Amino acid sequence: MAKQSSESAAAAVSEERLWNRHMEMAKIGATPKGGVNRQALSPEDAQARSLLVSWARELGFACAMDDIGSIYIRRPGTDADAAPVMTGSHTDSQPSGGRFDGIYGILAGLEALQAIEEAGIATRRPIEVVNWTNEEASRFGSGCMGSQVYTDPAKLDEMLAMKDLDGVSIAEALAETKAAMPEIAHRALKSPVAYFIEAHIEQGPELEATGNVIGVVTGIAGSRRFEIQVLGEDAHAGTTSRKRRKDAVRAATDMIRALFELMDDPDDTVRFTIGRFMVTPNALAVVPGHVLFTIDFRHAEEEVLTRLGDQIEAVCRRNAGPCKVTLTEIRRAPTKSFAGPVPDAILSVTERLGVPYMHIFSGAGHDARYMADHCETGMIFVPCEKGISHNEAENVKASDLAAGARVMADTLIALANR
Amino acid sequence: MAKQSSESAAAAVSEERLWNRHMEMAKIGATPKGGVNRQALSPEDAQARSLLVSWARELGFACAMDDIGSIYIRRPGTDADAAPVMTGSHTDSQPSGGRFDGIYGILAGLEALQAIEEAGIATRRPIEVVNWTNEEASRFGSGCMGSQVYTDPAKLDEMLAMKDLDGVSIAEALAETKAAMPEIAHRALKSPVAYFIEAHIEQGPELEATGNVIGVVTGIAGSRRFEIQVLGEDAHAGTTSRKRRKDAVRAATDMIRALFELMDDPDDTVRFTIGRFMVTPNALAVVPGHVLFTIDFRHAEEEVLTRLGDQIEAVCRRNAGPCKVTLTEIRRAPTKSFAGPVPDAILSVTERLGVPYMHIFSGAGHDARYMADHCETGMIFVPCEKGISHNEAENVKASDLAAGARVMADTLIALANR
Repeated sequence: MAKQSSESAAAAVSEERLWNRHMEMAKIGATPKGGVNRQALSPEDAQARSLLVSWARELGFACAMDDIGSIYIRRPGTDADAAPVMTGSHTDSQPSGGRFDGIYGILAGLEALQAIEEAGIATRRPIEVVNWTNEEASRFGSGCMGSQVYTDPAKLDEMLAMKDLDGVSIAEALAETKAAMPEIAHRALKSPVAYFIEAHIEQGPELEATGNVIGVVTGIAGSRRFEIQVLGEDAHAGTTSRKRRKDAVRAATDMIRALFELMDDPDDTVRFTIGRFMVTPNALAVVPGHVLFTIDFRHAEEEVLTRLGDQIEAVCRRNAGPCKVTLTEIRRAPTKSFAGPVPDAILSVTERLGVPYMHIFSGAGHDARYMADHCETGMIFVPCEKGISHNEAENVKASDLAAGARVMADTLIALANR
Repeated sequence: MAKQSSESAAAAVSEERLWNRHMEMAKIGATPKGGVNRQALSPEDAQARSLLVSWARELGFACAMDDIGSIYIRRPGTDADAAPVMTGSHTDSQPSGGRFDGIYGILAGLEALQAIEEAGIATRRPIEVVNWTNEEASRFGSGCMGSQVYTDPAKLDEMLAMKDLDGVSIAEALAETKAAMPEIAHRALKSPVAYFIEAHIEQGPELEATGNVIGVVTGIAGSRRFEIQVLGEDAHAGTTSRKRRKDAVRAATDMIRALFELMDDPDDTVRFTIGRFMVTPNALAVVPGHVLFTIDFRHAEEEVLTRLGDQIEAVCRRNAGPCKVTLTEIRRAPTKSFAGPVPDAILSVTERLGVPYMHIFSGAGHDARYMADHCETGMIFVPCEKGISHNEAENVKASDLAAGARVMADTLIALANR
């Protein structure tokens, strides 16, 4: 039954349909400044999931959900025993996120599936489009949760117990998400996958600057994330002399200044971010006794992650003044290289379709990092206006989204017939 | 009818009763670490007000409430036309406040009233105990609100419109507070007061360190409060190079470091506090595009308030990097000196009762500052353990509270017969 892998569904990809689906999704959790706030397992995330499943079912594709809430849309293959080719990304967003981050990888997959269907092409392997739960880590601390749990189900219980800043656990939020979608089949974690391929906007400026439309991703930068607690003493702002103060904001700002000095490299390759800074009691007339801040530190080279990252705790201690400091490394993700059949297939299809491309390394983390431990993996990037992402102003060209979906469709066919 | 002002109710003050009332009040909004969280016009503040009014009414004293929610407990005088002597402080607290800040001034007043009643002493003027609304400014930005509105009713509408961080206005919170106490008479703002005297814990270490029990307060330090907004640009933490970032946390920490350098005086007389620091979007993997922080700056000398305070904006601008900065001065309160009949009466009573005392200047702001624009005013301080205040660990000696209440009782009698 299986046809040749040189078959193409590229002509059946509809730029208009793909763009319109993005605009429909962007209404869910829309923010005043034109972005989206659709944090993991929120009512808005549940609404986006329902819309996705309704589109898939209209096209006749079966849907399933696993124990961490990730959703799988499936087009059957001709070989009932063959492991699927999987593509997808995430519906969740940052609190002030853009309209394309994550959702593009899902809608490009759905568009490819629809194009393959309309082109009447049968594949040996099934093709699946996945929506991974909580990629962003903005609400619940550990990102890429769906792919982490899928590839290592032993993490499930720990993840379900994780809480957001309001004290709501993943288990509780997930129960609401599941209640909103009662009629969906169950999918087992860690079932075999032959190939995983994720499409995503670049979130950086290189493709746009070089005039390329497709980035064949060579790997993902490693990252280390830390949470630092600074413990001082609440005191009266009007009566407490400087020498009697244990001011956690003063200590934290001294630490942060020293950390930025440590991380300021002349080549500008280090990515170092204090994304969260929270003061207690956070009152105008109280010398603050407690600060919690987070560090997100990324680099392409493991050696740099180790050398600089291992100095963070000492720098904090040296600058703590009269305060105490505790540091927790929340997560360390190693640098991951992509090579083999998936990037090879992307490259081959891109060249055949005549789309301008370049090889590109990803500073952003993606679920593909975890899937690469489970199966052959690769990624496709498309350009992102001015490289602006994790921002409500995030923007792309409809034609670039369509070009990525064409490469996706034909790469899926090629891999599904391998 | 009026007896001599040398009459004393000191012997009728009960240390045990006064302490027990503090412990009853401390149950309302009690925190796990032994403090209280009873922010202005919260359900806990309303509960403290109800308890206060129930105690006053059991003793036969009439109660009234004004348009900003301040409560007045009144013992009549023998001269129906005489303006009252007023004492009091506040039931509201900081979010991690102590058991004595504010509430002591009210309970010392109530104890004095009860002692005068029990001693069978009639006074020419009425004596009133007031609970000023929102002294702390922890929930609603402008502190000493009750005394500000009482002495300047033109501020009422502006105050009623003020909102907390959840968007609840004073008017809305006040409506709930009033609904919890429907059976209370109305009190007009700015009605005449002959003398105002406020008792308070010192909130500093001097009385304890010098072995004194009473502080005869000579004045209150001036203060300037600022709100600084730092506007950068949300960006992806993994893909945005340093040179492309407009990192509001980095800019804010640079500003704060420079401000601390500006304010570090060798004599340690400047009180400079960054009490509030809030990041948006406050997400681990987003370069933060917005920070709001507050400054509370106090000094005894107007010249220092002007010279250093006027440099804050320039220091922020010089350290803003690629971000924009806007500075708003929320409030400026001038240094206020107390002199005249009230401190004279406190001094005379303290000497007669033989309580060790000193003259003392207040770094903390109090409602007495605003009342001093309306009538003759003074304050009594009692010692505070290690000077720790605006902290759940705040503590005092029961015997010191009682000593302050004895001085209060006899000073009220003296002033009420003037």
